[in-house]
Amino acid sequence: MTGLEVDEEIMGATYRALCRHGFAALTMQDIADASEKSKAALHYHYDTKHDLLVAFLEFLLDRFSDRVASVDGANPATELLAVAETVLDPPDAADEREFRTVMLELRAQAPYDAAYQERLTEFDRVIRDRVRETVEEGRAAGFFRDDVEPAETAAFVVTVVSGAQTRRVTLDAAHCPVETARRILRQHVETLLADGEAIGE
Amino acid sequence: MTGLEVDEEIMGATYRALCRHGFAALTMQDIADASEKSKAALHYHYDTKHDLLVAFLEFLLDRFSDRVASVDGANPATELLAVAETVLDPPDAADEREFRTVMLELRAQAPYDAAYQERLTEFDRVIRDRVRETVEEGRAAGFFRDDVEPAETAAFVVTVVSGAQTRRVTLDAAHCPVETARRILRQHVETLLADGEAIGE
Repeated sequence: MTGLEVDEEIMGATYRALCRHGFAALTMQDIADASEKSKAALHYHYDTKHDLLVAFLEFLLDRFSDRVASVDGANPATELLAVAETVLDPPDAADEREFRTVMLELRAQAPYDAAYQERLTEFDRVIRDRVRETVEEGRAAGFFRDDVEPAETAAFVVTVVSGAQTRRVTLDAAHCPVETARRILRQHVETLLADGEAIGE
Repeated sequence: MTGLEVDEEIMGATYRALCRHGFAALTMQDIADASEKSKAALHYHYDTKHDLLVAFLEFLLDRFSDRVASVDGANPATELLAVAETVLDPPDAADEREFRTVMLELRAQAPYDAAYQERLTEFDRVIRDRVRETVEEGRAAGFFRDDVEPAETAAFVVTVVSGAQTRRVTLDAAHCPVETARRILRQHVETLLADGEAIGE
């Protein structure tokens, strides 16, 4: 195993252990049990559980940034909605519910933990930056109206997807907060279009 | 002390203990320490910490429902924004940050706990119902456009305020998610107005 493969293996084990045990109850032993490594070997790479979890957040942030960067669309409107989908419909659907819950647990730790807060704030920034760029490009191309404010659109998108994420963890199954968010976003994007343009599919 | 006063005293102590210790670490002893009651007396009223916390959520839900019901505005638009403010700017500002964090911790427990989930879903419903009524009344009075859909407006408001709540707990202090949400909501309410109407102050 190369160093990179070791890191990947530990990150995968951390993901599985978090999905199985949740954030609050997680121990280094749980991560070792989900890994090919012993607990001692884990501690060789990461001094504390906190260090490992910060590295895990950075690992997720890297993957998320790559996904957000690689989003594409037939036009700036579909691209903007596709950026929102990186949050609303992430991959790894098998453990999706468990993992979303873990992420909300982590978000609730942010006020107590500057290292978590810093990385979680970065997730928010990655989305906003990407939306802003998409709106700027769409405006320059005459696809969006001239008076659309990229930073305002970015704030709108990140607020709506954050609301959907929290509601989908919190509410009972009778609710479909993600579908709600999709409608809200699509309707908002309609208001950004220059005359004669359409979102399309 | 009447039974009601006892309950109020225990709920106040639970609030203070949660703000001080967070949800994850909270013990019955912590609540007793914040109360005039002994731990044994607490257990006389509530078998388990879980029972007490469910009762606490119901206590909050009652107070929240009352606050939402008593919201008033110069017109349906200001009333709608005032409903959102019951979430964005709750009272008890001294412990506000701590308490918001506790509420997010509780939200992250919902998937593991049907009793919490049921009450948390009710908070969401209380907001949506109130927004829906306000929009229906505003539409009937010709203040909002005829084609405004009350349930869609309700879903919009509750998604945006949920996003603001999560972001204010998660993000560093450089961000102002509540101000962002206020702008988003105000802008959205503008789109609901019938010709010739204005939000006003």
